[in-house]
Amino acid sequence: MIVRDFHEAKNTDRKVGAQRWNSVRLLLKDDGMGFSFHITTIEAGSEHRFHYKHHLESVYCVSGKGSITDIATGETHEIRPGVMYALDKHDEHILRCEEETVFACVFNPPVTGDEVHREDGSYAPADTAA
Amino acid sequence: MIVRDFHEAKNTDRKVGAQRWNSVRLLLKDDGMGFSFHITTIEAGSEHRFHYKHHLESVYCVSGKGSITDIATGETHEIRPGVMYALDKHDEHILRCEEETVFACVFNPPVTGDEVHREDGSYAPADTAA
Repeated sequence: MIVRDFHEAKNTDRKVGAQRWNSVRLLLKDDGMGFSFHITTIEAGSEHRFHYKHHLESVYCVSGKGSITDIATGETHEIRPGVMYALDKHDEHILRCEEETVFACVFNPPVTGDEVHREDGSYAPADTAA
Repeated sequence: MIVRDFHEAKNTDRKVGAQRWNSVRLLLKDDGMGFSFHITTIEAGSEHRFHYKHHLESVYCVSGKGSITDIATGETHEIRPGVMYALDKHDEHILRCEEETVFACVFNPPVTGDEVHREDGSYAPADTAA
């Protein structure tokens, strides 16, 4: 059994970040679960364009407020606690957070822990990630 | 993109339950993510013995208070918001919740949606589940 605490992990190299967001990886590929699990915090008043070309991701809103726009369809969905979105088609999307927003995120295949978002908004494929 | 709201899903057949717990399945096998994602609520003052022989599971505490005992090692860990445990060895365990406790749970392989806990505390293997 693995037991980890977000409040401890956020002070270690499990926390990675880029412009106005950070992600604390509580489970990574090495843990052998077949997925990775991250607590991701998006700053209030920020907007992000993400496109995970090589991963499927589900994102559950624990706290905060915002919206997500599916680039392919143009549809915008409200984000509030209890809302989950799943990028089952590697959907390119824009995420806006009015308040600081915390998400519980699952990636398949699991993130190795060294990826950062590339300029095109994606993570590298698992087999080429550093 | 799939978008679902816990507060709506809990009033549908996505919510299943047994003695003093319930689980709202926001993602199931049919969604094709390679994992399932559940919001599970454990009643205050309840104790549960679980053993997922055929699934790996990660469990992240969103709210509440309790403890988990790993049967194999005898170790007990405190459960509070931000604590995650992962049953990477199909660990048999006892979960106690002092307060109503809400968890974000990930199962691999994904749950089909029809499983309930069997008398031995497990879910059936994916290929035999109803």
